[in-house]
Amino acid sequence: MKNRIASRMSAISPSLTLAISAKAKAMKAAGEDVVSFGVGEPDFNTPEHIVEAAKTALDQGHTKYTPSSGLLPLRKAICEKLEKDNGLSYEPSQIIVSNGAKHSIFNVCYALLDAGDEVIIPAPYWLTYPEVVKVCGGTPVYLQCKKENKYKFSAAELKAAITEKTKMLIFNSPSNPTGAVYEEAEVREIAKVCEEAGIFVLSDEIYEKLCYNGVKPFSIAKCSEKMQDLTIVVNGVSKTYAMTGWRVGYLAAPKDVAKAIDSFQSHATSNACSISQYATMEALKAPESEIQAMVDVFATRREKLLALIKEVDGVEAVEPDGAFYVMLVVGGLYGKRYNGKALTDSISFADALLEAEKVATIPGVSFGADDCVRLSYSLGEADIEKGLARIKRFVEALQ
Amino acid sequence: MKNRIASRMSAISPSLTLAISAKAKAMKAAGEDVVSFGVGEPDFNTPEHIVEAAKTALDQGHTKYTPSSGLLPLRKAICEKLEKDNGLSYEPSQIIVSNGAKHSIFNVCYALLDAGDEVIIPAPYWLTYPEVVKVCGGTPVYLQCKKENKYKFSAAELKAAITEKTKMLIFNSPSNPTGAVYEEAEVREIAKVCEEAGIFVLSDEIYEKLCYNGVKPFSIAKCSEKMQDLTIVVNGVSKTYAMTGWRVGYLAAPKDVAKAIDSFQSHATSNACSISQYATMEALKAPESEIQAMVDVFATRREKLLALIKEVDGVEAVEPDGAFYVMLVVGGLYGKRYNGKALTDSISFADALLEAEKVATIPGVSFGADDCVRLSYSLGEADIEKGLARIKRFVEALQ
Repeated sequence: MKNRIASRMSAISPSLTLAISAKAKAMKAAGEDVVSFGVGEPDFNTPEHIVEAAKTALDQGHTKYTPSSGLLPLRKAICEKLEKDNGLSYEPSQIIVSNGAKHSIFNVCYALLDAGDEVIIPAPYWLTYPEVVKVCGGTPVYLQCKKENKYKFSAAELKAAITEKTKMLIFNSPSNPTGAVYEEAEVREIAKVCEEAGIFVLSDEIYEKLCYNGVKPFSIAKCSEKMQDLTIVVNGVSKTYAMTGWRVGYLAAPKDVAKAIDSFQSHATSNACSISQYATMEALKAPESEIQAMVDVFATRREKLLALIKEVDGVEAVEPDGAFYVMLVVGGLYGKRYNGKALTDSISFADALLEAEKVATIPGVSFGADDCVRLSYSLGEADIEKGLARIKRFVEALQ
Repeated sequence: MKNRIASRMSAISPSLTLAISAKAKAMKAAGEDVVSFGVGEPDFNTPEHIVEAAKTALDQGHTKYTPSSGLLPLRKAICEKLEKDNGLSYEPSQIIVSNGAKHSIFNVCYALLDAGDEVIIPAPYWLTYPEVVKVCGGTPVYLQCKKENKYKFSAAELKAAITEKTKMLIFNSPSNPTGAVYEEAEVREIAKVCEEAGIFVLSDEIYEKLCYNGVKPFSIAKCSEKMQDLTIVVNGVSKTYAMTGWRVGYLAAPKDVAKAIDSFQSHATSNACSISQYATMEALKAPESEIQAMVDVFATRREKLLALIKEVDGVEAVEPDGAFYVMLVVGGLYGKRYNGKALTDSISFADALLEAEKVATIPGVSFGADDCVRLSYSLGEADIEKGLARIKRFVEALQ
């Protein structure tokens, strides 16, 4: 045999930040007082009524195979959610429930991308997008978003990035890692460009409910019928209902795309966990007030974090309108030294910060933004205060 | 855009038996007294102590992300299982837990197959194997197993099927759909051929615990160190612990293969449901007596089914040593007519049987055996009696 491993596997980039994540984890495991801004999931528990729904499903013996694309009542509930929240009309056959929204994204890329197809990924981006595109044979084309535009790209910038090979745009609003949320008018301009070019949009709406200051996200699928026929909406319950471990994501797609993914998923993985599907039906029934309570907590933390960042000289942050991350711009400090060690990029910065002050962050290079580190505010206010005090001390000690 | 859907998707064959499955389902939903031999999962409930373990995990808030390849204690428990049951030694880093054994099989094919690689699939086969191979760019090469050899292929037959392009053999003992179980001596002969040719073996051992008449399966990975380095063992808890809906499968692989799959899964789907992982830890602790009780029930049904088949003239069955299926050979009846309609193949046979006697079976064409229909005996003895009486009446009424 020439090669044991398939050549497509070499498309996956080795994790640049694995070593530093491992170091933070080891320090925590050793009982050290690490403040972690690295968290990518809500620090809340899954609401009790959702947990109870799972227990009821267990008691009722709902532990068998479900249809591969998900229970029909769940897919109906998702259609109702899309109608109510997003004004989007879908039939249950257009909904595919998968093992998390990440799985939905993989399914979309696998079902749509041929070798050489270009996928436009606005940067900074969630680190999984380019890896999934590459492992499915596509070519990521990065569209650099400017800090001064609140990390949002314009319709004109998108248009300039489109070539004959462009098959899809990955659109993530609110964005991980920047927190950028596109307003309706901006989305409509972007949609016009996509319609004109006839390219698909994978609209990752997983942070939809986590918006602040009255900002409201707008689904690109809502722009027109033509746009809905080019959009695959991806969403899930992980972030909104603190259900990351349950692994339920879903997509809503044009019929031809949904049919291809349904068939593919039936052979590749089959259904998501039956118990999690029942829990998700309960989650989708949750009153907005329950979600709002969580959003309010994040909003308070966000304000605190942004205020404390302002007190640190030499760094800055673009105010995020959504999700629970802040990109801390630290590039202005590169060239300085900590304890004799030069800070040259986001990895050396994050590494020195972890070592000196036991503060864990994610180096921006993972997201295509090497002048930043990503801070999650999915941690308590006391920890945010402690962490920022340490960051301030660290920055002030730089030479 | 030239094509909306990726060309790889056209490799998936449309289901030949979808129409007949839908008809059986609709009849049942309409309240008709259908006896279904089509079931592909145990008709038992998940054992109570496993359900309780899931509830405890919920109460303890184990609802967050786990490592993508599975919780470390679970992977350790799987290593212990492989050591105890199969005499195989693995490290936890060689174990990847996925969203069902089907997902493990997809991961193996995706990580190993380049375009044009041939994969030998003994027929009759589980219908997902060729679809997964094709959608991953591989070429299925069918190795026809003979009824008179209890649907088992020999080492010599395997050798004759190997070409320069062969990358892997899919080995499924006990087999779905034939119930064939290879003895240790047979497995060792097959392993010799694989070692000599240097081809991988995907060893699907999901029905391992469901064996009858004292027959014992033997993992091909156990044959030699060299063979273990060429084998990916796939297993799971679905069939042994009546946990199909929970979606937990796993694989044990050589280090290079495990590393590639770990990295791929981290971007494609992430972890299997956290609650299901805790339940699986409990399942793996279950005493053999609990499993044996289920096996005993299947054994009794199997004997009853085989005895009743003998009373039907014109059909026959190869005694299966494992799993919970019997391939009913009905090819001798083709050419006859029911109510004027000619029976020409497994679909027309199954369709006429369903319409005439409300007995649901899976046409063998799905498994590459058009002279058969597959009967599952994952249903109660009374239903088995009723169903076989109807089949007898149906066959006797043929003209």
